[in-house]
Amino acid sequence: MNTKRSFGILAMLLAGLFCALPTQAAVLRDSLHSDILGVNKYYSVYLPPSFKQDAQAHFPILYLLHGLTDNDRAWTEKGQMERVLDELIGCGEIPPMVVIMPNAGERDTRNIQSGYFNMPGWRYEDFFFTELLPAVEAKYRAGGSKEQRAVAGLSMGGGGSVGYAMAHPDLFAACYAMSAWLDSERHDNAEPTDKMALLMNAVNDHNPMKLLEKADDRQLTAIRSVRWYIDCGDDDFLLEQNVQLMLQMRKSKVAHQLRVRDGSHNWEYWHNALRLCLPFVSRAMGR
Amino acid sequence: MNTKRSFGILAMLLAGLFCALPTQAAVLRDSLHSDILGVNKYYSVYLPPSFKQDAQAHFPILYLLHGLTDNDRAWTEKGQMERVLDELIGCGEIPPMVVIMPNAGERDTRNIQSGYFNMPGWRYEDFFFTELLPAVEAKYRAGGSKEQRAVAGLSMGGGGSVGYAMAHPDLFAACYAMSAWLDSERHDNAEPTDKMALLMNAVNDHNPMKLLEKADDRQLTAIRSVRWYIDCGDDDFLLEQNVQLMLQMRKSKVAHQLRVRDGSHNWEYWHNALRLCLPFVSRAMGR
Amino acid sequence: MNTKRSFGILAMLLAGLFCALPTQAAVLRDSLHSDILGVNKYYSVYLPPSFKQDAQAHFPILYLLHGLTDNDRAWTEKGQMERVLDELIGCGEIPPMVVIMPNAGERDTRNIQSGYFNMPGWRYEDFFFTELLPAVEAKYRAGGSKEQRAVAGLSMGGGGSVGYAMAHPDLFAACYAMSAWLDSERHDNAEPTDKMALLMNAVNDHNPMKLLEKADDRQLTAIRSVRWYIDCGDDDFLLEQNVQLMLQMRKSKVAHQLRVRDGSHNWEYWHNALRLCLPFVSRAMGR
Amino acid sequence: MNTKRSFGILAMLLAGLFCALPTQAAVLRDSLHSDILGVNKYYSVYLPPSFKQDAQAHFPILYLLHGLTDNDRAWTEKGQMERVLDELIGCGEIPPMVVIMPNAGERDTRNIQSGYFNMPGWRYEDFFFTELLPAVEAKYRAGGSKEQRAVAGLSMGGGGSVGYAMAHPDLFAACYAMSAWLDSERHDNAEPTDKMALLMNAVNDHNPMKLLEKADDRQLTAIRSVRWYIDCGDDDFLLEQNVQLMLQMRKSKVAHQLRVRDGSHNWEYWHNALRLCLPFVSRAMGR
Repeated sequence: MNTKRSFGILAMLLAGLFCALPTQAAVLRDSLHSDILGVNKYYSVYLPPSFKQDAQAHFPILYLLHGLTDNDRAWTEKGQMERVLDELIGCGEIPPMVVIMPNAGERDTRNIQSGYFNMPGWRYEDFFFTELLPAVEAKYRAGGSKEQRAVAGLSMGGGGSVGYAMAHPDLFAACYAMSAWLDSERHDNAEPTDKMALLMNAVNDHNPMKLLEKADDRQLTAIRSVRWYIDCGDDDFLLEQNVQLMLQMRKSKVAHQLRVRDGSHNWEYWHNALRLCLPFVSRAMGR
Repeated sequence: MNTKRSFGILAMLLAGLFCALPTQAAVLRDSLHSDILGVNKYYSVYLPPSFKQDAQAHFPILYLLHGLTDNDRAWTEKGQMERVLDELIGCGEIPPMVVIMPNAGERDTRNIQSGYFNMPGWRYEDFFFTELLPAVEAKYRAGGSKEQRAVAGLSMGGGGSVGYAMAHPDLFAACYAMSAWLDSERHDNAEPTDKMALLMNAVNDHNPMKLLEKADDRQLTAIRSVRWYIDCGDDDFLLEQNVQLMLQMRKSKVAHQLRVRDGSHNWEYWHNALRLCLPFVSRAMGR
Repeated sequence: MNTKRSFGILAMLLAGLFCALPTQAAVLRDSLHSDILGVNKYYSVYLPPSFKQDAQAHFPILYLLHGLTDNDRAWTEKGQMERVLDELIGCGEIPPMVVIMPNAGERDTRNIQSGYFNMPGWRYEDFFFTELLPAVEAKYRAGGSKEQRAVAGLSMGGGGSVGYAMAHPDLFAACYAMSAWLDSERHDNAEPTDKMALLMNAVNDHNPMKLLEKADDRQLTAIRSVRWYIDCGDDDFLLEQNVQLMLQMRKSKVAHQLRVRDGSHNWEYWHNALRLCLPFVSRAMGR
Repeated sequence: MNTKRSFGILAMLLAGLFCALPTQAAVLRDSLHSDILGVNKYYSVYLPPSFKQDAQAHFPILYLLHGLTDNDRAWTEKGQMERVLDELIGCGEIPPMVVIMPNAGERDTRNIQSGYFNMPGWRYEDFFFTELLPAVEAKYRAGGSKEQRAVAGLSMGGGGSVGYAMAHPDLFAACYAMSAWLDSERHDNAEPTDKMALLMNAVNDHNPMKLLEKADDRQLTAIRSVRWYIDCGDDDFLLEQNVQLMLQMRKSKVAHQLRVRDGSHNWEYWHNALRLCLPFVSRAMGR
């Protein structure tokens, strides 16, 4: 028995199991200090294989937003996002891209503070556009223009992605909303410590159906320059809101894709959503 | 501000996030003592929602086998199998079923011992059919006949599932092989401590292409009573072996399904394979 | 040159091209005299391969309804329905079934008379349930009970299928509505010669949203015994109506599947819908 | 009753049924005289909506080849190709493109003459590259370079597309072969009137497996510059040949996509293949 030989075959098998895709894609966690929020904010990053291979290359960028009660690690730890990225880049269905997963809700059991919009004591939207976005696009050689930038997200992050692209249509080529949380009750006398009430008010303030209804022609023209995609499961408790957005977009003549697939408000749905999201935003960014 | 009210809404949102599918499906780990192997063997179990709801119900059973270097937890921890089961049972695409994930390779860094076949010092196939199978089918009110039993697996477990269904066609209604490891070099003078060489010899001994070639009419008739499905990625290093099995099945007139999808030897492929596997084995068991 | 040999190969190639699926499925057109309508009515029939092979076999039945301006030949001539049936039966995804395509609108350029409901001068629903259904189920050894009967259709036929299953929930195991026409304006003073106005009134009378809203508990219990599937394209001009049906079904706690796929009100959508429809109704009929 | 009103609604319904996609895509048949073949040759053309709308626009081009016993009308009359083009262009999954469907086998009951390669009395490949290609690319403002040109086909046309892209890798960005006929027996003493034998010899001469085996490094480098896709059904009688091509491409290190989907040698398979083919060749042409 040639032991070396059997170890050689073992190596091949293990390589097959662990390294079948000879990718050098990287998922890492980084952070920056936010003067606006007064804290250090983490974010997760997906870097495609070619990022290391070609130090001059510049990439399209996708901001991929998590939901309530989660943080920047959710898309990798629960959503296995890197598996879909690796496969679709590997077979050429999408070009290499950088994905930034911000943290809009580091979970804190005593006092949940989260949300993508500005609210009392939490100017997250300001942080996102004036601190996070320029920093990561410079550091990771990505984005830099509307044509090279897209936003997507799930649940609270789905609402965040719609809100961001509605308010900044000049910054995003595409928006893909998964199971989006688009509206909420108001709590007009919410106390400053009632973080959940403040969040709900912020969501209510950014209701995209109302925003579209009030938009003037100049705003609508800008909003129509974004490629929109609404994706929500037929068993999702937020389906009504997503259907309302579609109905209002029809009225406001904002072209969009809508998909209602089988499923509920869960990671099986969102993991699969990436297979639709990534080619869609890639085509929009490639124009 | 009515704090109770906002907490009520928070509860609904959290319920939406965490409990969207009001399933009581359970994934648990169980074990039994094996006289044959001389050790306690773990296995993982998926129980459908109706298992608890109806204490009299009896279920079809699927044995779902892991690959080399993994153990019984791989399908849940890396494969997120319960997410697909929950969804497909939830929408009615498959009936409730019990899934047993055996452990054919508790990883041991000093001396890997694994494999689904009998080999010197490791009579796993005997353990599987005479100890594990009767115990779990009694305990979990499942299986009990060919018409209510199927086997599937990935890589080494794909080869195991084909080997089991070839050797025991009277016991399985269907076999679904994912990225199956079906052949290996021989090491005729392998030392008893060279576990990897022993495993490769066992795989070689159970090469299903050779088995089909030598099979007599009676054996072929039995083998044709199983529903076969071969599923392997176009970038998989084991694709050649799987294609060889298809070619031999054509020669031996053993009807089968073959799919070559985009992908490699990885969990993204196998997770998606479950969406094909579960309806296929369900239809075969339902006949 | 051996001419016979090359002709032999030619034969194989032609066989490959024309007869690759060695099916004996048949699509034929039949008719029966209707006392109710006072005319001879055509219908098209799909018979699975096993219909001829086994003269004792009994089959599940699907009624597949065409849209406005079409007739019973639309599903074969424009929808290529037999291609999907042949494939899904061939690979075992669905059991053999008989499909009846009735004619609710033999096109007549002078005076279009069509529609699945009773209306002045056109008691089509009566014809369907008391003349057509018993005749074809006897003649083609199919259906015979709720558990073996389903209805599906497109556009006007989608509305027809929903209307039939709402009014006769004891007769259908499943209903699959494609791009369904579910509501229309009323024309209360429509003249007897204004066939289109009569049709719109009939559609309005059978609005399933209103029907559900008014339904009592007994009716709702019966309606819930049907498996419902709503399928409508995101660019369809009837999407709003289909979304209204979903919203009302949620309110009335009628479980259903909803899919909004890419597409419009056209045959590419409906041909693909069959790939979802046939497994769905098969599972419902198989229970 | 307002008759005008009901006619207005009828118009809307009919518009919905017939013109749901407000496309101006056109499918037409054109012809050119071939000095090489000594006959007038027909071909079919798909022109995207923007062809008429923008008289200056230039388009990528796809050559889509039919199979034995068919002609240039097969892809529209049996394959409904325009339905898939309209939908994928409509939703932005592919850019507008011109599709040319040549005629390599006008059926003639007395004496079938067909095939994409040069053979005695039938210099079709010469006709294709020196007469057809320059003429249609000038007339329909399309193609003009490797980066804007792709070839695809089914059965005999699948073999033709592989043969063309192997022999002219500098002319095609991508090749998508469906159920390709890649090899045949030889008939060395075939008489000039035995057209089928001549065709089989031509197919045998262009066997891409042998071509790859013999190719030198310069040729392989050129061949690797084409994006290859092999797509063949698991019940296809030509699957073995397609698997052989994959195996040889692995040996020759020619990157490719392979898919084995459910199905046989028929139009259901090829119609669905377009949904994979069109995005694939579009991405390759867009680079």
